Amino acid sequence: MIPGSPKALARAVEAFATLPGIGPKSALRLALAILERGEEGARALAQAITGLVEEVRFCRRCGGFSEGELCAICTNPHRDAALVCVVEQPVDVLVMERAQAFSGTYHVLHGRLDPLGGVDASKLRLAELDARVARGVRELILATSATVDGEATAHFLARRYAPSGVRITRLARGVPEGGELEYLDEFTLRRALSERVAWTSDETAAS
Amino acid sequence: MIPGSPKALARAVEAFATLPGIGPKSALRLALAILERGEEGARALAQAITGLVEEVRFCRRCGGFSEGELCAICTNPHRDAALVCVVEQPVDVLVMERAQAFSGTYHVLHGRLDPLGGVDASKLRLAELDARVARGVRELILATSATVDGEATAHFLARRYAPSGVRITRLARGVPEGGELEYLDEFTLRRALSERVAWTSDETAAS
Repeated sequence: MIPGSPKALARAVEAFATLPGIGPKSALRLALAILERGEEGARALAQAITGLVEEVRFCRRCGGFSEGELCAICTNPHRDAALVCVVEQPVDVLVMERAQAFSGTYHVLHGRLDPLGGVDASKLRLAELDARVARGVRELILATSATVDGEATAHFLARRYAPSGVRITRLARGVPEGGELEYLDEFTLRRALSERVAWTSDETAAS
Repeated sequence: MIPGSPKALARAVEAFATLPGIGPKSALRLALAILERGEEGARALAQAITGLVEEVRFCRRCGGFSEGELCAICTNPHRDAALVCVVEQPVDVLVMERAQAFSGTYHVLHGRLDPLGGVDASKLRLAELDARVARGVRELILATSATVDGEATAHFLARRYAPSGVRITRLARGVPEGGELEYLDEFTLRRALSERVAWTSDETAAS
């Protein structure tokens, strides 16, 4: 920080700069914007931040974000408890829900296998998933990330739950919607080729 | 926000998204990062934010950021009180100080003339500047921004303080350091040409 500038400003800039995607320049811009807005705006923002850690917890069943013991999805009688989408992080649930295309429930692992990073199966929320599968799950959709560690985690889960007879699926891979071939990486393109599906006459109508 | 997600999360995302340069996606990323860090980190950030509005005020003399009645620059006996650099916003003082090239003092207008936006001379901190000039200022450096409104403000100030006999200067205009001609706009280039200065033999030694 600049010598002679108020300490509280320097502290706020430092605090902001520790957040992801916020460099020293954006941190200063944020601090100045808050100063400009005055006391009420600053207090509202501070309260929103403390409210976050006070009110948001994790659902005892699925491990997703929740306001109570169980989350709004797990307690919703219209959601299919026997159809479970397994994701890595609580935020993945939000991303899936935003797509408004899934009527089942979730299971958040709170991580993925990462042998080099010291994350083994004992660090993932598997005991709860074991219990859910034992209670009766029809299908597990493996929606871990499309990275080496995410794939390894999916393989691990598929092996773990195959003996239980549950149907195990994974998200489709391919060209993203709106994706132009010109800008597509070769790995995605290779995958999209090897997992190509038969053209059906509905496609033209649907698009 | 996504239906079913905790209200506190939605509130935090909304609060962050009102800040400059933070879209809904970055707002969610910030909220998640704070959640991940837990209670202590969230409280520290909230305190930094409220500390900002509680502890930072404006210097009674120059109008820049200050912790007390007068700022660290105005109370510094090593700063030349008779050499006054006039800027638009408190942040401009920080930017000038960062350059570590100025040993005078500042005067912050808290705005610039903007007839269309309804900002006339009465909205600028001019009474204080009048008083300072009356008490004795040797030189006023006009460092308003290089925009139409900033220029108009500088012209206005020059006319206002010319009768007092104070020396009036402005920041040099031209090619920015590290600027490549190829990427320079034509206005800057025109200005740099019309304000070209004689080459002195020191230049080669200095650079």
